[in-house]
Amino acid sequence: MRYELYYWPSIQGRGEFVRLALEEAGADYVDVARLSGRGKGVPALERFLDSRTEERPPFAPPFLKAGELVIGQTANILLYLGPRLGLAPKAEASRLWAHQLQLTVTDFLVEIHDIHHPIAGSLYYRQQKTEARRRAKYFIRDRLPKFIDYFETVLTRNSNGRGYMLGRRLSYVDLSMFQLIAGLRYAFPRTMARVERDIPGLVALHDKVAARPNIAAYLASRRRIPFNQYGIFRHYPELDK
Amino acid sequence: MRYELYYWPSIQGRGEFVRLALEEAGADYVDVARLSGRGKGVPALERFLDSRTEERPPFAPPFLKAGELVIGQTANILLYLGPRLGLAPKAEASRLWAHQLQLTVTDFLVEIHDIHHPIAGSLYYRQQKTEARRRAKYFIRDRLPKFIDYFETVLTRNSNGRGYMLGRRLSYVDLSMFQLIAGLRYAFPRTMARVERDIPGLVALHDKVAARPNIAAYLASRRRIPFNQYGIFRHYPELDK
Repeated sequence: MRYELYYWPSIQGRGEFVRLALEEAGADYVDVARLSGRGKGVPALERFLDSRTEERPPFAPPFLKAGELVIGQTANILLYLGPRLGLAPKAEASRLWAHQLQLTVTDFLVEIHDIHHPIAGSLYYRQQKTEARRRAKYFIRDRLPKFIDYFETVLTRNSNGRGYMLGRRLSYVDLSMFQLIAGLRYAFPRTMARVERDIPGLVALHDKVAARPNIAAYLASRRRIPFNQYGIFRHYPELDK
Repeated sequence: MRYELYYWPSIQGRGEFVRLALEEAGADYVDVARLSGRGKGVPALERFLDSRTEERPPFAPPFLKAGELVIGQTANILLYLGPRLGLAPKAEASRLWAHQLQLTVTDFLVEIHDIHHPIAGSLYYRQQKTEARRRAKYFIRDRLPKFIDYFETVLTRNSNGRGYMLGRRLSYVDLSMFQLIAGLRYAFPRTMARVERDIPGLVALHDKVAARPNIAAYLASRRRIPFNQYGIFRHYPELDK
């Protein structure tokens, strides 16, 4: 099946967690809003969001079209794709556990995003800079360590793992950990330089994912959008103290 | 099976979405942290969070113990419970859709919570009151209407429904809609008095859920913790303009 991913074409954002899964699996997919032509591009994405007839409209991108199905919410897309792409365990208990971790990634991403947008997503960063500085202080002191120490603990306690987050094989959760570490390094290089000593497992996992042939090829390609100041992870030096 | 719910005993919070599902279904469950005695109360909850051996530790409450399984993340708990309690459709596509809606509820709840805590969860409201006022303005103008209009649209487009969010039968998503409307009325009575005219479907659904025998009995019981100033939905008049 050819999957159609709908996400903003100029940022990694939440869509990147889906892109990484599709790329690792070598899946047949199109990144619809990044193409041009009839039925492509951002208008194709907006057609779903603005539709007056779609019975099950997504609230926001990313969403995935898989045949007749339209699936929204990043973690939900990965819940669906995981077993189909060989990136999730088979047993229900383990699948729920993978999804639980992915939902914790989702929570973390909201907090990361809201550092630079603590007041409103509809305002520019410069319009909420004072509040952002204040929020960043608590994020770096309390929240960042809490989340990454948790993920490191999970990795360490996966007693039958070989450095993966769950089980013995790569899952979409590992790909998400790669993306988290990469994004945090981009946004908070000073903080991460200090913090990474405490999370050797996650750092090794990041490197292991980056070295996988399909991921390495993807990262070197033009399909990988560079980090920039429009996504979730943004580098404002004044927030990285 | 006797389910064990672990959640803070003094607030509705995220745990309430699970409580409503268990109550509607008349499930056999204990609300562990609200009981006293050996292996009960808040210490029992904290034992999981602070455990140094739990292989799959939850990040935060609520979590549900179902036999040997420990499931975290509210929407994940409902994903698991839904079919077991007869509160989710059978077909995979519909189950994913229910879960997608629940994840959109999750997103909405973060935004509702962060109105009174835009800087840090570790600070008191009074320490971030200025920022809260600013955030509330954009929430009430932009975000609240966006979310509730979306849910109203979903309800309206459920062409084979009888006023339910999906399909022809009650699901956990309907219970969550009840809780959203109830909570928003508590937190933002002035805003909701104005806004409710635009969401007749959700208001009717709220009333329909409240009138269900098991839910009505629950709401009248001491098991239903009243809304208060410690949960997600808080009533600060200065934020409800």
